[in-house]
Amino acid sequence: MATVKRYKKEDMTTYCLGATVSMEYLNIRPQNVTRVYLHSAFYESETKEKILKICNERGIPCEVNDKVFQILSQKENCFVIAMINKYSCELDKGASHVVLVNPSNSGNAGTIIRSCAGFGVRDIAIIRPGVDFFDPKVIRASMGALSRVRFKYYDSWEEYKESDGAGERHFYPFMLDGSRLLHETKIEKPFSLIMGNEATGLPAFFSQIGQPVRIDHTDNIDSLNLPIATSIGLYEATKGDFLTE
Amino acid sequence: MATVKRYKKEDMTTYCLGATVSMEYLNIRPQNVTRVYLHSAFYESETKEKILKICNERGIPCEVNDKVFQILSQKENCFVIAMINKYSCELDKGASHVVLVNPSNSGNAGTIIRSCAGFGVRDIAIIRPGVDFFDPKVIRASMGALSRVRFKYYDSWEEYKESDGAGERHFYPFMLDGSRLLHETKIEKPFSLIMGNEATGLPAFFSQIGQPVRIDHTDNIDSLNLPIATSIGLYEATKGDFLTE
Repeated sequence: MATVKRYKKEDMTTYCLGATVSMEYLNIRPQNVTRVYLHSAFYESETKEKILKICNERGIPCEVNDKVFQILSQKENCFVIAMINKYSCELDKGASHVVLVNPSNSGNAGTIIRSCAGFGVRDIAIIRPGVDFFDPKVIRASMGALSRVRFKYYDSWEEYKESDGAGERHFYPFMLDGSRLLHETKIEKPFSLIMGNEATGLPAFFSQIGQPVRIDHTDNIDSLNLPIATSIGLYEATKGDFLTE
Repeated sequence: MATVKRYKKEDMTTYCLGATVSMEYLNIRPQNVTRVYLHSAFYESETKEKILKICNERGIPCEVNDKVFQILSQKENCFVIAMINKYSCELDKGASHVVLVNPSNSGNAGTIIRSCAGFGVRDIAIIRPGVDFFDPKVIRASMGALSRVRFKYYDSWEEYKESDGAGERHFYPFMLDGSRLLHETKIEKPFSLIMGNEATGLPAFFSQIGQPVRIDHTDNIDSLNLPIATSIGLYEATKGDFLTE
């Protein structure tokens, strides 16, 4: 049995905490699941049967081991942990992207990933420094939706712009002083919605890139929280894809 | 000096953790601030001066007391705690509302409060059972924006409907199977955006109330997270208030 330790960024493996999160990886990326731990208190259920079935079919080792939960999980309601071999992704150069410039909060990153998967924008560029998307806190906050997106790190905006952000592409930096209101802006595809850091927003030079947009709000708050602003952008940019006949 | 204990729902007082959150209450609801604690490691700054000035002007006791931080705060970066006398609010019957039916998560509640304040919808109805809005976790997640909204609890939907929800009012329950798409729906004022519980959504009978709406997304996810869905609703309902000339 592999020794189990608390997650560190440099590790080659990470893990999914909880049944829902683990099931997402077992369904979407079973090739990256190396082992599944069950807690002895995990009751018989449809979910348990599904997990055992996938592990059996795929030859993924599955064991009952309560000690692992003591080491890896602080939550009482965690009964399944899936170990994941880290993998790397390439973005789809022709697709629409979300670009996160220096995102710092793991819960926010997870919520953004879930919204991206939800609105069908499945390519996420992260400009360093940025939170580690393989952090178990990110995977958990994404409800496992990390398995459904492609993500890639870049050392700078220029690196992204010259590689996967090259070609025919429409850039929309979200800035508090963006020159147009989001809801008065036609978002053309393929787009890159560009979001800044939670505390500092985007560097000023983004006002010269593409069409900077803003989401107006009252001065009761300094700014919307990052996943909220990103999700409103995704909603506005993709709502033409969802129409009643 | 009053003895300080970890927050319990039945307490008459609650507290703001952190300088930003405390400043919101000192600025917006100083009449409810009974005492301010500073950590000895709180450096000299503009914020510190402002806090001391308001406390001085308002006669709010302010003391350096590191022990209080050990008891009330688990975060390392918390240097100010404002004690708050709980208060009750009445909703504005003529204004637009957000109605939260059985909200269960304190972080989500705080994020929703912040978005409500941001989009200028300052009346929130909570149908019991629901998370305690005075929980310090809620106040902190709201970044102190709780001070800027009115909120009130109701034992049932009917109780809200027959009191503060009575009169000329347009109801929009957010449901996964809502009969209209949000972005194809004209949201009339005053509105009540009605949001269900994180895990279970709204009870089925809400499909008979007002105009049920849905936010379409791919089947990559089961549902959007609650603050995201609420904030998209707020954005869509209020964007006519924010127009360029």
